[in-house]
Amino acid sequence: MQSNILNNDTICAIATPHGMGAIATVRVSGAKAFPIVAALFQHRGNFMEISEVVSHKAYHGHLINKGELLDEVLVTFFKAPHSFTGEDSAEISVHGSVFVQQKLLQVLIANGCRMAEAGEFTRRAFVNKKFDLAQAEAIADLIGSESEAAHRVAINQLRGGFSKELQVLRSKLLEMTSLMELELDFSEEDVEFADRSQLKALLQEILAKVNRLRDSFHLGNAIRNGIPVAIVGQTNTGKSTLLNALLGEDRAIVSDIAGTTRDTIEETLNINGILYRFIDTAGLRETDETIEKIGIERSYKKIREATIVIGMLDATIDYKSMLSSSIEMLGKVDLEHQQLILCINKVDTLDDHGEALLGQLRQDLDNEEIMVICLSAKHKFGLNDLYNTLKHSQPFAHPDATLVTNVRHYEALLHASESLSQVQQQLEMNIPIDLISQDLRQAIYHLGSITGEITTDEVLGSIFSRFCIGK
Amino acid sequence: MQSNILNNDTICAIATPHGMGAIATVRVSGAKAFPIVAALFQHRGNFMEISEVVSHKAYHGHLINKGELLDEVLVTFFKAPHSFTGEDSAEISVHGSVFVQQKLLQVLIANGCRMAEAGEFTRRAFVNKKFDLAQAEAIADLIGSESEAAHRVAINQLRGGFSKELQVLRSKLLEMTSLMELELDFSEEDVEFADRSQLKALLQEILAKVNRLRDSFHLGNAIRNGIPVAIVGQTNTGKSTLLNALLGEDRAIVSDIAGTTRDTIEETLNINGILYRFIDTAGLRETDETIEKIGIERSYKKIREATIVIGMLDATIDYKSMLSSSIEMLGKVDLEHQQLILCINKVDTLDDHGEALLGQLRQDLDNEEIMVICLSAKHKFGLNDLYNTLKHSQPFAHPDATLVTNVRHYEALLHASESLSQVQQQLEMNIPIDLISQDLRQAIYHLGSITGEITTDEVLGSIFSRFCIGK
Repeated sequence: MQSNILNNDTICAIATPHGMGAIATVRVSGAKAFPIVAALFQHRGNFMEISEVVSHKAYHGHLINKGELLDEVLVTFFKAPHSFTGEDSAEISVHGSVFVQQKLLQVLIANGCRMAEAGEFTRRAFVNKKFDLAQAEAIADLIGSESEAAHRVAINQLRGGFSKELQVLRSKLLEMTSLMELELDFSEEDVEFADRSQLKALLQEILAKVNRLRDSFHLGNAIRNGIPVAIVGQTNTGKSTLLNALLGEDRAIVSDIAGTTRDTIEETLNINGILYRFIDTAGLRETDETIEKIGIERSYKKIREATIVIGMLDATIDYKSMLSSSIEMLGKVDLEHQQLILCINKVDTLDDHGEALLGQLRQDLDNEEIMVICLSAKHKFGLNDLYNTLKHSQPFAHPDATLVTNVRHYEALLHASESLSQVQQQLEMNIPIDLISQDLRQAIYHLGSITGEITTDEVLGSIFSRFCIGK
Repeated sequence: MQSNILNNDTICAIATPHGMGAIATVRVSGAKAFPIVAALFQHRGNFMEISEVVSHKAYHGHLINKGELLDEVLVTFFKAPHSFTGEDSAEISVHGSVFVQQKLLQVLIANGCRMAEAGEFTRRAFVNKKFDLAQAEAIADLIGSESEAAHRVAINQLRGGFSKELQVLRSKLLEMTSLMELELDFSEEDVEFADRSQLKALLQEILAKVNRLRDSFHLGNAIRNGIPVAIVGQTNTGKSTLLNALLGEDRAIVSDIAGTTRDTIEETLNINGILYRFIDTAGLRETDETIEKIGIERSYKKIREATIVIGMLDATIDYKSMLSSSIEMLGKVDLEHQQLILCINKVDTLDDHGEALLGQLRQDLDNEEIMVICLSAKHKFGLNDLYNTLKHSQPFAHPDATLVTNVRHYEALLHASESLSQVQQQLEMNIPIDLISQDLRQAIYHLGSITGEITTDEVLGSIFSRFCIGK
């Protein structure tokens, strides 16, 4: 399972973010980590003796390269297996000068280290069974997390919550398979070790759990990359003004000219710990203008992909005709999977007659149980109502529930689910055990690939190459 | 001497560079550093007890905020006075997610920390006498160092080489003063405790050392900010082409039109570990064009400020007339303090006759001991000759020699030198001891201000405000 890069080389890399800071940390890991670092490091005026090294102790001293002082540093040695990688490792904290960081890497390489590949520290930790593959991937997610919710999902996965659930499912499937395969050995005697109805019930239970995990990807992915919220409506209802108001900056070009926005503009925004991906779309209207037409086509596509749709209405236009034509426009897409929030914009400009009409409209919509918010995007009035509605219109999972956020995991669960459905049908049809067990093995394989119990070098390479160097 | 910000607050800051990385380190320092961090940190499933904390030991565990896992971390506690600041401190290594870093700061602040001011960790270390002021300033220089030479100067200063030299000078002066002031006590008896000729010799020795340090600023500053090299010459000799060739990019606008460059363009370049600041100047010629005139005035100014002057000549022009008019132009400035390197450009375009003339020119120049290089800036030919000549035309100090790189130190040395010269004159003129000792005290004050033995809160504030936060 080991690739070429996973040999006994001792690797090094800058582990802290790029650039200048008060301090920076260089990591060294591998069989020669202790002798290489000790030979460069003077503690209390003497070069460190490896026999004296106490694991997990921060030593203050001097990095000396060819008799010249490179920096005053803190060095901590981690004796295998009690390190991040599971190998002998050292962390060198230097002053955060870009020059010193680069120079230290050069010196380490000159003394027998090799620059670490992207994700190689984590990969070594995985190979040394410090954690499984899903947990290794959670580290990358954790580092990239941009919101409280994304952070919570990643940390839960890092703690092994997801892995444990998979483990349970997998061992149940393995048990089931061995029972069925036992029958194969005695096939001539026509015995049934496995009670068929019990098998069916167990399979049903497992399949339900696999499907729950598979379906959690929709939410998990939304949490990681932002919940997609499409802002749609007819031209000139103030969609771009709303986006700008939400972002607090002039992101979209705003004008009174209908059809100003042609490209869809996407911006992520963290509201109360949840990441949203707002998508400003071209106004929906019949048009002959080619570029605008393409824009409108894209709007429909974005609506279909969104989790939440904000339908913008202009309060200054007679609401009945507007509403019907808006609904007609939106009718071109199936809103079954989307939560619709109607925003009635420009309410600050209404006269008494308008106010009365608006009151009537709200009542009508309430009767139809459509969520509706009155606001003025221009004057940033009503935005808090929108924030609260957004928060409640998203079916949030329990904080500790396992959510799948990774496409690779999602695909594996998808395949596992398909195989298990196959098994289910075959059991119903009394297909011979040897054929059924093949599909069961497939399902087990796919579940195992998530935590890395079964995986190829190629898959590992592709996973870890997406890590940053130093991780 | 303490300012308002130097109270018993416990401070925290991100110490590693900004942004995302594999790991990031948050520093906490102050009386409550241990209880604040321990209350958030679970090691082996239990919150840390302060009584159990072993200084300088890296503990692996979990950061828990209000029952929720924030991150898996390494925490190292440093018991006062054995820490960077001299106070109880802790370093928390988290996964380098921007979210986690920010969140940890928020949690620490909610639990009784305060965000550190710029340079506050170093300032506390200075107040707790972990190092003197010159060493504290060396840390900032070290972090900002961009070349091998600048790094070497900063690390030497950090090690206290400079401070030690000043200490010796200061204690000699103090001894001298006390001897002289002893005479004051016995002034009615007209005794001379201090042998006048010995005093004069000692003063001479001290003054020489102070002046050597003062004069090292020219080189020290050049090493830190780059050695200023002015590229000068008549219009259209290829000065901008040379700058671009040196930088390997199109930094200056190049054209065949004489007078293209009007602004002076400065770029720093690290050649073999030495930082140079190349200054492309407007071509020197008589002109009536107002903007160009200003440019030419600036050229002369840059020549006066430079350490090295590259005089560009065009090989395709009859060298005698060119040389004489160039020298006439350069003659407007005093080149006594500058090293002149003549570059004969466009040598690739010469015919046989031109080659012969060039040979003659080189011989003439050699006879006058003027450094001369033939090159083609356009075809990047001869640049290595230029690099070597640059390297040897700079009077480099011995690697371990103390160089002054800081304007504040330079000014203090300037004042000390003036006071000491005053004393010298007064000794010659047999001025009464009480008047002389006043000037001596002045010199002692100035030398002491460099290492911070005598300093004001205002000075400290201004020094540390230039540090980054987290240092």
